Amino acid sequence: MSESQLDKKSQAWSALFSEPMSELVKRYTASVNFDRRLWRADIQGSLAHAEMLAAQGVISADDHAAIQRGMAQITQEIESGQFEWKLELEDVHLNIEARLTQLVGDAGKRLHTGRSRNDQVATDVRLWLRDEIDVIAGLYTELQQALLDLAEKNVDAILPGFTHLQVAQPVSFGHHMLAYVEMFARDAERLADVRRRVNRLPLGAAALAGTSYPLDRERVARTLGMEGVCQNSLDAVSDRDFAIEFTAAASLAMVHVSRLSEELVLWMSQSFGFIDIADRFCTGSSIMPQKKNPDVPELARGKTGRVVGHLMGLITLMKGQPLAYNKDNQEDKEPLFDTVDTLKDTLRIFAEMVGGITVKREAMERAALRGYATATDLADYLVKKGLPFRDAHEVVAHAVKTAIQQGVDLSELPLATLQGFSPLVGEDVYEVLSLRGSLNARNILGGTAPEQVRAQIARHRARLAG
Amino acid sequence: MSESQLDKKSQAWSALFSEPMSELVKRYTASVNFDRRLWRADIQGSLAHAEMLAAQGVISADDHAAIQRGMAQITQEIESGQFEWKLELEDVHLNIEARLTQLVGDAGKRLHTGRSRNDQVATDVRLWLRDEIDVIAGLYTELQQALLDLAEKNVDAILPGFTHLQVAQPVSFGHHMLAYVEMFARDAERLADVRRRVNRLPLGAAALAGTSYPLDRERVARTLGMEGVCQNSLDAVSDRDFAIEFTAAASLAMVHVSRLSEELVLWMSQSFGFIDIADRFCTGSSIMPQKKNPDVPELARGKTGRVVGHLMGLITLMKGQPLAYNKDNQEDKEPLFDTVDTLKDTLRIFAEMVGGITVKREAMERAALRGYATATDLADYLVKKGLPFRDAHEVVAHAVKTAIQQGVDLSELPLATLQGFSPLVGEDVYEVLSLRGSLNARNILGGTAPEQVRAQIARHRARLAG
Amino acid sequence: MSESQLDKKSQAWSALFSEPMSELVKRYTASVNFDRRLWRADIQGSLAHAEMLAAQGVISADDHAAIQRGMAQITQEIESGQFEWKLELEDVHLNIEARLTQLVGDAGKRLHTGRSRNDQVATDVRLWLRDEIDVIAGLYTELQQALLDLAEKNVDAILPGFTHLQVAQPVSFGHHMLAYVEMFARDAERLADVRRRVNRLPLGAAALAGTSYPLDRERVARTLGMEGVCQNSLDAVSDRDFAIEFTAAASLAMVHVSRLSEELVLWMSQSFGFIDIADRFCTGSSIMPQKKNPDVPELARGKTGRVVGHLMGLITLMKGQPLAYNKDNQEDKEPLFDTVDTLKDTLRIFAEMVGGITVKREAMERAALRGYATATDLADYLVKKGLPFRDAHEVVAHAVKTAIQQGVDLSELPLATLQGFSPLVGEDVYEVLSLRGSLNARNILGGTAPEQVRAQIARHRARLAG
Amino acid sequence: MSESQLDKKSQAWSALFSEPMSELVKRYTASVNFDRRLWRADIQGSLAHAEMLAAQGVISADDHAAIQRGMAQITQEIESGQFEWKLELEDVHLNIEARLTQLVGDAGKRLHTGRSRNDQVATDVRLWLRDEIDVIAGLYTELQQALLDLAEKNVDAILPGFTHLQVAQPVSFGHHMLAYVEMFARDAERLADVRRRVNRLPLGAAALAGTSYPLDRERVARTLGMEGVCQNSLDAVSDRDFAIEFTAAASLAMVHVSRLSEELVLWMSQSFGFIDIADRFCTGSSIMPQKKNPDVPELARGKTGRVVGHLMGLITLMKGQPLAYNKDNQEDKEPLFDTVDTLKDTLRIFAEMVGGITVKREAMERAALRGYATATDLADYLVKKGLPFRDAHEVVAHAVKTAIQQGVDLSELPLATLQGFSPLVGEDVYEVLSLRGSLNARNILGGTAPEQVRAQIARHRARLAG
Repeated sequence: MSESQLDKKSQAWSALFSEPMSELVKRYTASVNFDRRLWRADIQGSLAHAEMLAAQGVISADDHAAIQRGMAQITQEIESGQFEWKLELEDVHLNIEARLTQLVGDAGKRLHTGRSRNDQVATDVRLWLRDEIDVIAGLYTELQQALLDLAEKNVDAILPGFTHLQVAQPVSFGHHMLAYVEMFARDAERLADVRRRVNRLPLGAAALAGTSYPLDRERVARTLGMEGVCQNSLDAVSDRDFAIEFTAAASLAMVHVSRLSEELVLWMSQSFGFIDIADRFCTGSSIMPQKKNPDVPELARGKTGRVVGHLMGLITLMKGQPLAYNKDNQEDKEPLFDTVDTLKDTLRIFAEMVGGITVKREAMERAALRGYATATDLADYLVKKGLPFRDAHEVVAHAVKTAIQQGVDLSELPLATLQGFSPLVGEDVYEVLSLRGSLNARNILGGTAPEQVRAQIARHRARLAG
Repeated sequence: MSESQLDKKSQAWSALFSEPMSELVKRYTASVNFDRRLWRADIQGSLAHAEMLAAQGVISADDHAAIQRGMAQITQEIESGQFEWKLELEDVHLNIEARLTQLVGDAGKRLHTGRSRNDQVATDVRLWLRDEIDVIAGLYTELQQALLDLAEKNVDAILPGFTHLQVAQPVSFGHHMLAYVEMFARDAERLADVRRRVNRLPLGAAALAGTSYPLDRERVARTLGMEGVCQNSLDAVSDRDFAIEFTAAASLAMVHVSRLSEELVLWMSQSFGFIDIADRFCTGSSIMPQKKNPDVPELARGKTGRVVGHLMGLITLMKGQPLAYNKDNQEDKEPLFDTVDTLKDTLRIFAEMVGGITVKREAMERAALRGYATATDLADYLVKKGLPFRDAHEVVAHAVKTAIQQGVDLSELPLATLQGFSPLVGEDVYEVLSLRGSLNARNILGGTAPEQVRAQIARHRARLAG
Repeated sequence: MSESQLDKKSQAWSALFSEPMSELVKRYTASVNFDRRLWRADIQGSLAHAEMLAAQGVISADDHAAIQRGMAQITQEIESGQFEWKLELEDVHLNIEARLTQLVGDAGKRLHTGRSRNDQVATDVRLWLRDEIDVIAGLYTELQQALLDLAEKNVDAILPGFTHLQVAQPVSFGHHMLAYVEMFARDAERLADVRRRVNRLPLGAAALAGTSYPLDRERVARTLGMEGVCQNSLDAVSDRDFAIEFTAAASLAMVHVSRLSEELVLWMSQSFGFIDIADRFCTGSSIMPQKKNPDVPELARGKTGRVVGHLMGLITLMKGQPLAYNKDNQEDKEPLFDTVDTLKDTLRIFAEMVGGITVKREAMERAALRGYATATDLADYLVKKGLPFRDAHEVVAHAVKTAIQQGVDLSELPLATLQGFSPLVGEDVYEVLSLRGSLNARNILGGTAPEQVRAQIARHRARLAG
Repeated sequence: MSESQLDKKSQAWSALFSEPMSELVKRYTASVNFDRRLWRADIQGSLAHAEMLAAQGVISADDHAAIQRGMAQITQEIESGQFEWKLELEDVHLNIEARLTQLVGDAGKRLHTGRSRNDQVATDVRLWLRDEIDVIAGLYTELQQALLDLAEKNVDAILPGFTHLQVAQPVSFGHHMLAYVEMFARDAERLADVRRRVNRLPLGAAALAGTSYPLDRERVARTLGMEGVCQNSLDAVSDRDFAIEFTAAASLAMVHVSRLSEELVLWMSQSFGFIDIADRFCTGSSIMPQKKNPDVPELARGKTGRVVGHLMGLITLMKGQPLAYNKDNQEDKEPLFDTVDTLKDTLRIFAEMVGGITVKREAMERAALRGYATATDLADYLVKKGLPFRDAHEVVAHAVKTAIQQGVDLSELPLATLQGFSPLVGEDVYEVLSLRGSLNARNILGGTAPEQVRAQIARHRARLAG
């Protein structure tokens, strides 16, 4: 009869309803087309619930066994693509429950004891997200390792460091890559914080108020590997913080990806010409035969908007909702799912693509020379000879002006010319005016000197291995 | 050979590429799974392009005929579901072009003369969106008509008008519904403005710089019913203003839907009890047998976040992009498509659901009485008897305080009591203290008096009929 | 007594209130610190209201004269900085009304007849915004003119047109600037649409239901130069579409500014070196003496986020609000004000800065040569000799590959080498391989040929003059 | 000379610049109007830097003493309002440095050794934000304590728990308040995570590459109470994750505030009438004498949009920026400052206002009865008598239908009538049909039974005391 009651919903929800749901409404409100991907978490949660119901004596051992048997078969059916998903059964939960009751009868009906869809769906999403977080954590590690490999190969390659996209000071290409390792390491750390708040159990909150059945919620939490139990039933069914917090963390990760992408696109532009990206990550043009386009970083940069849009959508969704569960909440799933997919795909492809980057050292060095990148070194040199920094700054500005007029680098100005700007200049000035001299001088924790960069690479390797 | 060149892309993009595209990249960058819905616009645009090429003598009449024949068959294949979409052909454009060349040979190859995918995709999206805008305009009309019907039936039903969700003054329920008619009328007006800027032709911009073939762009625009030609080729291929502008307009429409939804949910709550929504638009609860939930307005309110998220995603996408086309732009489609779908579904279901609303007049009137809704009328009465408004306001505050203490409405206070607050009060005060008297008094353009409401309904009917 | 009633609010709102407002609440809810900038619109609206009240016989001619006199004095006081704004009077409206009553007594009290703060504030904001829109429209014109001047001077300057930031085809620098003229022209067109919906009169809606006084709302609209009257009182006081619509239009304008900024920053980077920006628009570095940074475009690009954030904030604000006025709406002002300020400042500084851009023609041409920008021209050449486009594309890919290997441009390959790729190649090929030849060939409406660019400049000049 | 060099900036940035900065640009780019609030952090950071420079022997003990003396005087000048902030000195950093040099001469010039504004500003913002986080953490505690007090007084008050704003099941008002305690506890936990990532030291990164001076960065970090040193100089100056992460956390907190606000506004509406908010937190109406409006929760709900807008703005700001510092970043401050101010003001006023809430128990109980809140209890009763839940659900739907038709509560149906729906019903049914019986039955961890609620209150008290 329960089974038929679920089926009857195509006629009317219950005796209280005088007409069946409109077809339009059925399509508008059904979620099974997108929430079916929760099926494994749904079954996992149901099995843990059933195990506890049996342990508490709420259902019999036979019922428990029947439920386990039924769920095993459903798992097999879904994995093999034979399971028939029905729109009129609305969502993944009712689809699985209806099939279970078909398979094992009354035991299936008893599974729903002490729970409702409100706490069930919250549990499913949390379980699913926790497992996805673990996959993403692995991808963060892979991407960091790929960046470390690229950094290690290019510790001594000199890149013009930019501020305002103007040549500022020479930096190690490896050092530059480590900036991104820092970002993704922070993303991983943040994700671990989010995971703690995701991995809590709503089940047992029932519709909103708790239940009168003697459930052991902490047992279910342990079975599912969760770190705790949501301590308030109203909050348990209405909270979507975890989805927003995850999406905010994903947005930050995509912001980092977009910054790296921006740089890769710039560096691959002919005017920079600092890198090449392997052909397998590029596309051509249907009309311009000479084109090789960095599609992957461009598209990734674009996908940042997508994830940020989901974050904004989720916040808008929750703003101003009264407690407890409202149907609005059904809209939490698609943005969350798409955020997870987009982030995973992007991290995976970047972890691969970073390995396909070729660094063009000569072009980078040439560009560093073009921008008077060692001007600050000349100022520091004068300071060490006794001039206050602010005064040295002005002396060097005059020297740069002259070099620009003559179309040469600072290191190409004759000693006499340099001494014309300040009598403090000596023969040894040419050491500090070299790119490599400048790099080596920044030998401070976090600085760009190759020694420091190698130490950081070692630290990151140890961290990731730990 | 062209055909095979398209096929060869699974090996390498062109002679310039030394390896095939990575499988991961192919999946990451392919758009055919979502852009295939543009197929009709793509064929429509191609036919207009071919017609012009023939007219300009760029292709022969035979080629033109072949292209028409091939496109007719492709149309038939897609409509019947027989067309085979290939991921390795990336997008809707290459899929159709490859099939055309299979069907009609060299003529198919010549179709791409003087155009590129950059101007082709921009044209397709604009054509598609223009037609969807026309569908949406029709739905705006339907929804307004449904609201007008509901308003007309309830011109004389009295609702407590709220400010700050506190009872303020009695208003006609019909008048309240007309507020939403104004909003959706504004949405329709805005959409017509957007349509003008959507309905312009990028085709002929080629990749970014225009083409050396003697195209007649204005002829193509006329054929496609477009209002003009994009006047700058770089802008033509890189502009996505129309998508953002449309999504912004859709966001405002959803904000209006969300406000109406909020009110329907409130009014259906037992504490208000102002309306009932027909069972076919409601759902029950799997655990609470007494529940009848207003799922449709709740879900619509939630979907506002979705559309707003798409708007934010699209703006983020375009911010800071250099000209002209970048791959980022491929990300414009999914949010735009989903915005169109969400808006259409929501408008359609609301146009139906509004017809299923039953107004509970007694409950509404009772609520209006509970909140001293005619206090302002008493103040106005005193002003007309000569008291300055600010003083009358204070007199009435005292009267309300007394009524609250006695647990009665203002109209239930004896004359003597009222005269105790001001000697200006006479027998005629009880007329203005009635809800209906209050309503009738606001007989000013835009006011809530039934006479005004009926006039507005007539005006709207005429407007929509025009 | 009225005056003192406004003053008394520091003790209690009215007889209904048993205690004064908490100091914390007073500060949290007061708006006079930011809404005082509406003062001129507030007085303008009040004067139009008073004029109509007198014409309708609701107030006497003497009262009208007294109100005019008082408002003249208040205007003088505010302009001269002598007006004393009081936090305890909450907002601009009560501050002015209280002062008016001080100055002219009972007539001041009568000004509020038939209106409330709800319709008053909506009127003020619309009046203010309409006038700001007119200022912004002027700035759009100035910016377009500055871009046209720059374009005109550089019609013949050749820039490598990019797609995917890869060299694509040569374009005229003037043509590139015209792409931005198109964008800002579209912004101006959009703003004119917004203006129509801003320029409607809420006054007469009173608190939410209209009023019982015989107001002539259309007369007030005419006096204020408004195009119509809000036709529904509930909508009139609760609608903030105009603020959202304006902010959305401003966001699009800032997206255009951010795209131009991105290009200016790129082009000024040493690796591009396409332009120079006059020193007065740049800053140096406190530490790096050689730096000259394009601060203005960078900051403008950053300010895009600010305006987009305001749009998001305003939408979130309105989502799900029940009718009619809620206190939430007070939060509409600061984002709107800051959007107007940011847009105006940015347009003004860009209109100036564009005049300070120096184009480095040689660097641009050199860059265009570096990227095989005429490869498409070679393909088109072969097509005109009879080869299908798709085949020509592949031939050229081979030629480019060879040129890359030899480190030369296509135009530097000997005829024999080119003929090795296709026997169709003749002596005349070198014409199409030149940048200028490529440019001239794209002589189609919207194309980059100098003839077309000059025609567009003339069209825009005429449009702006009109 | 240094001092004058700072002054000279009104003529030209350095010898490289041929003209002074335009006045318009000066105003557009200056930040001193808003960043001066960082002054204390700026001085604190400078003192720690100076102390380390002295310890490392980079500056002399005399210089160190002079800097300390100068900074003490500047602190006094700023606190007393005598400090003269100059727009032409751009920002807080140059204003303080220029004054220091005026006061102590060469020692002041030497303070900037080994640092740049890029690492200085990042340090200042982090220090400032860390301290604000500590203030906010205290406010979270205060708000939770206020909610706990309110909960404790109302453990036994019965509220109709809603789902879909339809009466669902009776809950304890105290339990409902604890849902918000959970939310704010989560906010506090999240904020502590954010703090860890805020509290790291960028100083020593200099402009972008580190410095050649022998700085001891870890010493500075210890002096400032920071938990670590930013390990990559490029990341140190360009990272704004901490601002985005904080704003995202603040957005979630405001979402929680907005949900509570929505409920307070609903509950204070006459149709609900569940609570009263003390007069000192409410306002009246200038036109409607009976009004008492819940301005504070409404405004707080509105301010959610403001904070969410800032989050959107900050993300847009950072998206796609190449390393390292760009001027765009200056736009990080205003949204961050306003987020901190808004959150603090809102938390403070809510902590106060919660103490001014009066609960109207009778109205709440009446409302719970009106909605058949114990229907689920009847179903559970039947399940315990042996009926499968899905069948019991249907039986109860019939009973509710009958009760609705008779206009009575389930508990008012005669035994015979109830037995007509199911023979399993016995005399004891009336116990479960009472609100209080229903409440007591949900005696499970996290459930609404008073015993559980009291245990949770105790747990929270202990947590906050800890």
